[in-house]
Amino acid sequence: MKSRITMMAIAIAAISTATTVQAQLPDPGMEIAPGRTALLITDPQNDFLSPKGVTWGVVGESVTKNNTVANIDSLFKAAKANDMPVFVSPHYYYPTDHGWQFEGALETLMHNIGMFDRKGALTTEGFEGSGPDWLEQYKPYINDGVTVISNPHKVYGPETNDLVLQLRKRGIDKVILGGMSANLCTESHMRELMEQGFEVAVVSDATAAAIVAEGDGYQAALVNFRFIANTVWTTEQAVQKISGK
Amino acid sequence: MKSRITMMAIAIAAISTATTVQAQLPDPGMEIAPGRTALLITDPQNDFLSPKGVTWGVVGESVTKNNTVANIDSLFKAAKANDMPVFVSPHYYYPTDHGWQFEGALETLMHNIGMFDRKGALTTEGFEGSGPDWLEQYKPYINDGVTVISNPHKVYGPETNDLVLQLRKRGIDKVILGGMSANLCTESHMRELMEQGFEVAVVSDATAAAIVAEGDGYQAALVNFRFIANTVWTTEQAVQKISGK
Amino acid sequence: MKSRITMMAIAIAAISTATTVQAQLPDPGMEIAPGRTALLITDPQNDFLSPKGVTWGVVGESVTKNNTVANIDSLFKAAKANDMPVFVSPHYYYPTDHGWQFEGALETLMHNIGMFDRKGALTTEGFEGSGPDWLEQYKPYINDGVTVISNPHKVYGPETNDLVLQLRKRGIDKVILGGMSANLCTESHMRELMEQGFEVAVVSDATAAAIVAEGDGYQAALVNFRFIANTVWTTEQAVQKISGK
Amino acid sequence: MKSRITMMAIAIAAISTATTVQAQLPDPGMEIAPGRTALLITDPQNDFLSPKGVTWGVVGESVTKNNTVANIDSLFKAAKANDMPVFVSPHYYYPTDHGWQFEGALETLMHNIGMFDRKGALTTEGFEGSGPDWLEQYKPYINDGVTVISNPHKVYGPETNDLVLQLRKRGIDKVILGGMSANLCTESHMRELMEQGFEVAVVSDATAAAIVAEGDGYQAALVNFRFIANTVWTTEQAVQKISGK
Repeated sequence: MKSRITMMAIAIAAISTATTVQAQLPDPGMEIAPGRTALLITDPQNDFLSPKGVTWGVVGESVTKNNTVANIDSLFKAAKANDMPVFVSPHYYYPTDHGWQFEGALETLMHNIGMFDRKGALTTEGFEGSGPDWLEQYKPYINDGVTVISNPHKVYGPETNDLVLQLRKRGIDKVILGGMSANLCTESHMRELMEQGFEVAVVSDATAAAIVAEGDGYQAALVNFRFIANTVWTTEQAVQKISGK
Repeated sequence: MKSRITMMAIAIAAISTATTVQAQLPDPGMEIAPGRTALLITDPQNDFLSPKGVTWGVVGESVTKNNTVANIDSLFKAAKANDMPVFVSPHYYYPTDHGWQFEGALETLMHNIGMFDRKGALTTEGFEGSGPDWLEQYKPYINDGVTVISNPHKVYGPETNDLVLQLRKRGIDKVILGGMSANLCTESHMRELMEQGFEVAVVSDATAAAIVAEGDGYQAALVNFRFIANTVWTTEQAVQKISGK
Repeated sequence: MKSRITMMAIAIAAISTATTVQAQLPDPGMEIAPGRTALLITDPQNDFLSPKGVTWGVVGESVTKNNTVANIDSLFKAAKANDMPVFVSPHYYYPTDHGWQFEGALETLMHNIGMFDRKGALTTEGFEGSGPDWLEQYKPYINDGVTVISNPHKVYGPETNDLVLQLRKRGIDKVILGGMSANLCTESHMRELMEQGFEVAVVSDATAAAIVAEGDGYQAALVNFRFIANTVWTTEQAVQKISGK
Repeated sequence: MKSRITMMAIAIAAISTATTVQAQLPDPGMEIAPGRTALLITDPQNDFLSPKGVTWGVVGESVTKNNTVANIDSLFKAAKANDMPVFVSPHYYYPTDHGWQFEGALETLMHNIGMFDRKGALTTEGFEGSGPDWLEQYKPYINDGVTVISNPHKVYGPETNDLVLQLRKRGIDKVILGGMSANLCTESHMRELMEQGFEVAVVSDATAAAIVAEGDGYQAALVNFRFIANTVWTTEQAVQKISGK
């Protein structure tokens, strides 16, 4: 084993001599292994992605600028065309969830604005076309009987649903990740999947986030994707890799 | 229940008429309940906080600017003076951890530079004063026989250790959170504790992060703390609240 | 601290001089704290509890002998009469779950016999009165708009759903546990809740299990309830405690 | 999809026409895939396996009858001879763990008798040869620098340590499981690993359990191993499969 001093020297050298972004932080990359790699989309729902959704006022700019709706569509299309397993992790709240005794800032906001509210887990009354429903153009991909729809997550990550089990039960250990919103559910899914020992490639323009006075959620997410994930791709790169090009 | 249109109107109003940061995103706050509230510090270790640590080249500026070392000290001091339970979640790597087959970007970097490396779980050889050891000035607080030291976490969050159990076994459901580094272990602890149903107040200047060409980890963390946590305090505010003032 | 030899002596004494079951293993007990204690019922569904359910051939004897259906009803009734929060953790499978690549023994059996099969997460077609539906007599308790129905668990424990979060979001840290089946979902809920730092009192006759050639699931569960839980009550004891008598 | 009535008929047939144990419950089996399969031993420590251990009075009979010590040794030996990755999940308590405010029955007993007590996480004082230390004859296997020793679990399962991550970081998705004690840590590891999407083969005579007035922990575990795991092997069968025979 190298001495600590030597290692410190290497570390400092690695950092201080970097002249480009790629040279500075390692980019471990992720090879797509057929049968072990899946596409995962978080919250592809009207309340985030439709101009009629309850958050459009704060996420619309980021969604539009990133071309998020079309990019997620491209990912779905490429995965289906190449028989890559597709998983969707939705976000729903039920009436009893409004009985929680405490909530974080965005949880409070989401509850206040009725985001993702359904009338119950065992009723679909009023669901069709509502805020928590899938964006209409994604329905052919999500409702094809093959896409795996996990239980809804209830905060931001998959800790409260069965996504990890569903991935493992199909032998998936590598995930290509997109969806909404970048610094909340998408990032929490990235973090938790890595804690669970998955490799994760985040698609940086197949997501978007709220931009408010307190900060730009998308810029925050980009930093953390780059620091934490195995690699970060554009939609174009992801589609090429999914297509085996 | 209010109609969706009405709720959207309220939401848009809440957002568009805001004139200050506080008005825009809700700030749910967190009341300190004696016996149910703890101080939690992540990674108070030399490799992050000492100028001799292996990451000082990238985190030193942020640590210095935030006065992080003194602020964490103030939190420890206030908690001990007020009999508030204190928990520490450290980060260690053992030789076998270098046999991992894949790693994210910062995991790769940490392993490359020998960060947090110990010679084994069942030996303290070479530990005293090394990179993974506690910052010297914190030892009286951490080694007093009362502070609860969890198992080491192995990625960024407490999913891989016993921190949540240790908090619950003492009836803690509210956490005041500081430590290193802001957008990695501190933020992952915040996110996971919230998934587990804790209230979390993050102390925004009792942490710091790497600033590299790819981005400013501290600014990213600040945005996510504000979006996600129950509330965000300065060290001064936290010390006042811990002291019951 | 006592010496190891002394402690061994105490331990041996504690074990060898015991003259009754209660004296031998400690029985830590569980005090009901109003507002912090909930009733939790696992799988109160036709496929386990109705003579028409797909498992009646193997669980019917145990359900009948324990008077399980009436005992669970008594627990629901007592909790509702005393404003104790009630949680239900159901078990559902969706068509995509039949695409799992590997399963344990009972998972294989459950899938083979179509147990808990629904047509999808977002449809209630054919659900009313089916195997995964609630036992008819429990519907007034479960569908009152107050009972919290978690996401379905997908193996045996609450690791794959939001039950722990739902409990924590209401300040619950003590659980009175009954439901089906004793050594599978009920026991896995007991084990996981204890790993998460809850206190658990199991109601030993408000559950039942399959008895097959390979073994008696109910007897196995009784042993593990007694070894692991904070305490074990009969339905009669539980109802008295819930009623504050 | 077959009708429910047809499926019930199949189910009843499957159960009622069985003439042997193996025919009754499915036995999904587990194929050993080199590089993806590991041996996992829980709690191979003096307090369970040595006549000087604090629990020998209650587990000694079962350990002796099953030939557990020699059987675990045979598993270690076979795995090492065939380059199969080996993982050990130990059980330790530190002085602060005695500050827990509530405990289940066996947790209370373990704390009362000083089981697995170490003087601290960061000291090895008094550890050598003590109750929490490895059984002497296993040390060559465990301390070879290759075996992965997870953080200690703190209740019974791996929820409180890094075992799942360590397995995943090496591409392991199938586990051969033995160790102590059968219905507590071994069974909780089996259950949690299955919740996490691993295949598990339990080695039924490479474990043992306490037999007390309240029940026979080993018999309870045998039932649950058979109901839940992917398959159950004897040590002889496991060694043959590990050796590729």
